[in-house]
Amino acid sequence: MTATAWQRRSGEPSPDDLDRVDAWWRAANYLSIGQIYLLENPLLRQQLAREHIKPQLLGHWGTTPGLTFLQAHLNRAIRERRQRTLFVTGPGHGGPAVVAGAWLDGVYAERYPEVGVDERGMQRLFRQFSFPGGIPSHAAPETPGSINEGGELGYSLAHAYGAAFDDPDLLVACVIGDGEAETGPLATAWHGNKLLNPAADGAVLPILHLNGWKIAGPTLLARIPEHELVSLMRGYGHEPLVVTVGFDDEPTREVHARFAAVLDDALDRIAAIKADAAAGTLAERPAWPMIVLRSPKGGTCPDEVDGERIEGTWRAHQVPLSGVRDDDGHRRILEEWMRSYRPEELFDERGAPAAAVRANVPKGDLRMAAEPASNGGVRREPLRLTAIGGHAIDVAPDARGAVEAQATAVLGEWLAEVIRDNPRTFRIFGPDETASNRLAPAVYAATERQWNARIEPGDEHLALTGRVIEVLSEHQCQGWLEGYLLTGRHGLFNTYEAFAHIVDSMLGQHAKWLESAMHVPWREPIASLNYLLSSHVWRQDHNGFSHQDPGFIDVALNKSPEVVRVHLPFDANTLLVTADHCLRSTGRINLVVAGKQPAPQWLSMAEAEEHCRRGLGVLPWAGTEREGSGPDAVLAAAGDVPTLEALAAAAILRERAPALSLRVVNVVDLGRLQPPDVHPHGLPDDEYDRIFPPEAPTVFAYHGYPWLIHRLAYRRGHHPHLHVHGFLERGTTTTPFDMVMMNELDRYRLAIDVLQRVPGLAEAHAGLLDELADARARARAHTREHGVDVPEVADWRWPASSLGS
Amino acid sequence: MTATAWQRRSGEPSPDDLDRVDAWWRAANYLSIGQIYLLENPLLRQQLAREHIKPQLLGHWGTTPGLTFLQAHLNRAIRERRQRTLFVTGPGHGGPAVVAGAWLDGVYAERYPEVGVDERGMQRLFRQFSFPGGIPSHAAPETPGSINEGGELGYSLAHAYGAAFDDPDLLVACVIGDGEAETGPLATAWHGNKLLNPAADGAVLPILHLNGWKIAGPTLLARIPEHELVSLMRGYGHEPLVVTVGFDDEPTREVHARFAAVLDDALDRIAAIKADAAAGTLAERPAWPMIVLRSPKGGTCPDEVDGERIEGTWRAHQVPLSGVRDDDGHRRILEEWMRSYRPEELFDERGAPAAAVRANVPKGDLRMAAEPASNGGVRREPLRLTAIGGHAIDVAPDARGAVEAQATAVLGEWLAEVIRDNPRTFRIFGPDETASNRLAPAVYAATERQWNARIEPGDEHLALTGRVIEVLSEHQCQGWLEGYLLTGRHGLFNTYEAFAHIVDSMLGQHAKWLESAMHVPWREPIASLNYLLSSHVWRQDHNGFSHQDPGFIDVALNKSPEVVRVHLPFDANTLLVTADHCLRSTGRINLVVAGKQPAPQWLSMAEAEEHCRRGLGVLPWAGTEREGSGPDAVLAAAGDVPTLEALAAAAILRERAPALSLRVVNVVDLGRLQPPDVHPHGLPDDEYDRIFPPEAPTVFAYHGYPWLIHRLAYRRGHHPHLHVHGFLERGTTTTPFDMVMMNELDRYRLAIDVLQRVPGLAEAHAGLLDELADARARARAHTREHGVDVPEVADWRWPASSLGS
Repeated sequence: MTATAWQRRSGEPSPDDLDRVDAWWRAANYLSIGQIYLLENPLLRQQLAREHIKPQLLGHWGTTPGLTFLQAHLNRAIRERRQRTLFVTGPGHGGPAVVAGAWLDGVYAERYPEVGVDERGMQRLFRQFSFPGGIPSHAAPETPGSINEGGELGYSLAHAYGAAFDDPDLLVACVIGDGEAETGPLATAWHGNKLLNPAADGAVLPILHLNGWKIAGPTLLARIPEHELVSLMRGYGHEPLVVTVGFDDEPTREVHARFAAVLDDALDRIAAIKADAAAGTLAERPAWPMIVLRSPKGGTCPDEVDGERIEGTWRAHQVPLSGVRDDDGHRRILEEWMRSYRPEELFDERGAPAAAVRANVPKGDLRMAAEPASNGGVRREPLRLTAIGGHAIDVAPDARGAVEAQATAVLGEWLAEVIRDNPRTFRIFGPDETASNRLAPAVYAATERQWNARIEPGDEHLALTGRVIEVLSEHQCQGWLEGYLLTGRHGLFNTYEAFAHIVDSMLGQHAKWLESAMHVPWREPIASLNYLLSSHVWRQDHNGFSHQDPGFIDVALNKSPEVVRVHLPFDANTLLVTADHCLRSTGRINLVVAGKQPAPQWLSMAEAEEHCRRGLGVLPWAGTEREGSGPDAVLAAAGDVPTLEALAAAAILRERAPALSLRVVNVVDLGRLQPPDVHPHGLPDDEYDRIFPPEAPTVFAYHGYPWLIHRLAYRRGHHPHLHVHGFLERGTTTTPFDMVMMNELDRYRLAIDVLQRVPGLAEAHAGLLDELADARARARAHTREHGVDVPEVADWRWPASSLGS
Repeated sequence: MTATAWQRRSGEPSPDDLDRVDAWWRAANYLSIGQIYLLENPLLRQQLAREHIKPQLLGHWGTTPGLTFLQAHLNRAIRERRQRTLFVTGPGHGGPAVVAGAWLDGVYAERYPEVGVDERGMQRLFRQFSFPGGIPSHAAPETPGSINEGGELGYSLAHAYGAAFDDPDLLVACVIGDGEAETGPLATAWHGNKLLNPAADGAVLPILHLNGWKIAGPTLLARIPEHELVSLMRGYGHEPLVVTVGFDDEPTREVHARFAAVLDDALDRIAAIKADAAAGTLAERPAWPMIVLRSPKGGTCPDEVDGERIEGTWRAHQVPLSGVRDDDGHRRILEEWMRSYRPEELFDERGAPAAAVRANVPKGDLRMAAEPASNGGVRREPLRLTAIGGHAIDVAPDARGAVEAQATAVLGEWLAEVIRDNPRTFRIFGPDETASNRLAPAVYAATERQWNARIEPGDEHLALTGRVIEVLSEHQCQGWLEGYLLTGRHGLFNTYEAFAHIVDSMLGQHAKWLESAMHVPWREPIASLNYLLSSHVWRQDHNGFSHQDPGFIDVALNKSPEVVRVHLPFDANTLLVTADHCLRSTGRINLVVAGKQPAPQWLSMAEAEEHCRRGLGVLPWAGTEREGSGPDAVLAAAGDVPTLEALAAAAILRERAPALSLRVVNVVDLGRLQPPDVHPHGLPDDEYDRIFPPEAPTVFAYHGYPWLIHRLAYRRGHHPHLHVHGFLERGTTTTPFDMVMMNELDRYRLAIDVLQRVPGLAEAHAGLLDELADARARARAHTREHGVDVPEVADWRWPASSLGS
């Protein structure tokens, strides 16, 4: 079955066709209720009895009849137009509706043969829902056709746009609940239409479903005048089509005919836009249609129970009848309710959907739950990645630290090649920081920023087609990338480190998705979500305290160790190796923190590859360790600025305390610090102890909050002797070296700490300790007086001594 | 000087008056440039030389002339109308503009006498800006008049609404940059007008400043057709007034007259709305005016430098001329630019603002930088708090665990009293979860939900006036509360624990604000920001994995220990004591995690007060410790569910391993675990060691991610023997006890761990260990089969043995 995208309607749907829609809808509603309530007796062959009812009633009915209604109608349109359609369920808590649809369409049984299309399967379908050992109540990774869990609201429309990019034949029908519509991320996601290329990308059809209620109160958008709502949608650049249906409060065929006409209108408008776009006759950004569907919350459920209005109120949000197990009266109401869908017409004797229902099921992959874009792993092809060696910085052993480079600018050169070699499957998203983070100019030599708002004379690197997409909303960047990855493509999100916290919660939800998806056998792994965090805490001295926060790493490391990886490359070559690795990986969330400022380069490409493969390692050229004997102390570092400071401290100690046997270690992959039973990258204890001898003090200069290292390494042998320096939440507008001094991470402080931790050393070097303390005071005074760092720091080069005169 | 709010205009501004506006504007621009560039020679008495220029040029010019322009015009309107006005600077990175305004209006020197209103003061003003040891580049706490730092974009309009609540005479003029307008939080903040009471609250005047550019690209809202922009604003419920000014590209008086007319129009419309609201003649929610100001980015700066267009482009975003220290040509351009404002007319011989400038300065507290609402601490009055004793749950020593209560429902009863006693200074914000979190029904007996969208028959607890404000946007809830607190009031944000992550970044920014404000002598402490996190990780078994995340605590604890407090009350009485403490405190961010489900009650009110005062303590009735001898093991817990499981484990051990000397400890205040040099609540080591003896194993049942406890306690003596159980990022839709079992936090697992940690105990109790393992297996099997927890868990009551038969 081949899809033929963007057909126009062939005529009004026939009454028979609307009856098919209605049958499918009733069947999906019946199955949804069954999932919420029933353990047994799925076809109601017997009168409902106590033992047929689940002991715990969990689920959300309120949004469900709307979701089933939309699926029923989309199925009709898909059948007629043979239109590839991805269904994004904003109200993902209406899980029963999407599960029911997948079962009716036969996809569920294909994914889960034990839940077959018969009475036994239906009973399993009901029982497993929200049941221990069963399936979650939301549109989770376990749900065929889903790319949006919908537990945390706000991201459906961003996911929809992400799915649409670079898939010109795909229709993404995105249901947005009126609760979700109140969230910030959703409120700005409407502007996604200004970043979409109508010819090269798919189409997004937002369906704002106003059922009027959240958990306990009305929704804002359901309570503003229609002229405001229409203005709002026009203001967002859409052509709104508003339709109100009463569900079972008005004649069935009228309901279906009214909505079918609106849906056909919307799809015809989209087809016309796509035709113009394909023909190159689209004069300006089109006003894509969107649908506002008003319907009663929980419609088709009992109007009232015990004198309280249920249908059309917040009381229908979760489980409308809670006492059905023990209350015979309520149970009778439930049975009447279920029988009101006339199950005898909907399922055959075996319990399979009847012909009337099956007639509304599209064929093959056109079934929405089977759309390959909803199982992106099956579509994913590895990126074509040019060898990083061609972009390596040449670092000879005798010239370490002498070459300067901007790590992210070097990465940009390589990413430009990635873009050239993968013109339809790789994108960079970011909040207006691609240039600031130095990926440009290289990246803009290979591509433009995609943009479908007005372009004016003098604009640079804006075009209708481009691999970079920028908007000042981290939520959109993340949401688009998630949608893009979940549908089988690849990408990178580059952003300021501090403001990555804006998407903490999205990271958490995506990590949970990936973690759960790992246990779903039919889901193939998708490409990893790659963050490039530049403009990091140590180089926001000019922007001040609000821009200084390395805590995104901490948030990420709370998620499953199977999913999260944190990389701290400390020069351009280690960044290249890291980026290459991340773009090849699947199923992960990779955080890469890297510098954008000119900085000394330390490792050759061969060394960088070996070092990153190990994830951590000794830098033998930097220490003074004597062959055979263990070190007196270890000076470890993770991150570019901490490594620079640690190396400068090592240079001081090498010159001024030559008797000290110092080992210098760099850590690129934080997972190596954790025990192997906690993190798959965890170094076995014996290997770990060889690098960090248990009895030697380790002074650790870390990029972020110092306690993170303790949290990772607390079970290791050297932990009682581990002393971590990092960001202590002290910052302001100042100079780079003042920032490290404020946080006790500077070279002088690190050297002092080493001297004080090794027994006997402080006494032997009392003068040096004084000099180091003086150097700190002098650096601070100089900065306060002149507004710049002292020359001995600003101009410091390895391996010169950094104490100056 | 008394303000007289909501006057209508007295006529067109005279040319002289517009000249005063212009003089003030030119002076503010001059001072802004001086801050960005100059170290010396503030009045340009000499030709600008290299040594007059800062060695590092930091700051954001692009937004600055717009901000000074708006302040100049607002000053005129304030003078005429005597209107209390709070200026909220969304583009807070335009710090120089707000600092300049405060200095011109004389407020700066009142706050910082060393930065006087004379040449010496001006030189200090210039030098200190973005200079080490000086002031930050943003509208930080150091900036008089500021309540919005603006480093992280998105929150200005929410802050504005928060400031306006319950201050009916206050105008909040809120400048929103077109970059910020792209963020999600800002995109939904426009709906704040549906929550505002036009009579009882102040007025918000949003000013969307379209200067067209972000850091490196154009803004979306500047690149959509005007009809879309106008539709968007009407859709948000506003009446947009659009005005375009060319700054120095057109005649000065025309520019000022045009904008003055629009501002007067806006303020007259507001005055009319306020008059109708006061008279009770407002038939429906008014369409409040808002202003769209289009102006060239960085206007009044040099048009071109070195052949590149600067003014009106993204190149004006930060520092337009970067080479002025070393490039004589550029330095001459800078000098010409500064002289173009005609400083000789603006400052007198002493360097003080000339009469022409001072004539545009409002009097006294009407100066925007002096508005008391911008320094909320000075307005704050302690809440009237009814004694919590009246709401205590009676827990007799012989009936511990026998009484059941819902902690948050009990709190709700007390909060209802707080609301009744503080009808204008206390609010509860939340995303539609006040009822779900069980604060209702009690709270709704005392107040309503404030709502100014349509109210329909059958709606409950919705009214134009109410102390509870709900919208499904955690960003808005947090932003409103911040604005409300920063202007001197009190409040509470109640939300689902998992979704608090949505505001991680806002918590971080507010913590940074509070931390910095502590060091600003003229800022009085504001009321603490109190989170009530209910519907927590252990009781989201029905909603599933996406709702299970206790990591907000971890994010909070990365911020300054001077600011952040985490409270884990474990029953209703400890929750009452905690809430009372938090509502009395200032300058803090208090996280309170509490249960909403019916649960056993453990402490009498007297015990709860003592226990919370200590922050942690032994529960002597729960352990089996023998008088005089130390414990064999400590079983510690923090959080309601972990404490329940720990107590159940203790009950098992008491009955089945009576020889074990077990101490049971509960921790309410996590800060107590940290060393006293790290956290002000940190327990001294000797006291700590008395509770957690260094050599005894401690099995710790913790509410959140277990490594957090290690991160807090790693320096403590018992750390090598500390074994923490907590949330391991394992979850789904299941039963409550299955959730704790999945994460190894259940009573059986805790008891097993204690038995295995105490030398010799496991051998002596091999049978018990088997029984406990069997109990786990049985519990799991029962849950999988029946969908509910085993009766021995579900019906368990202290002090019965929980092993069942």
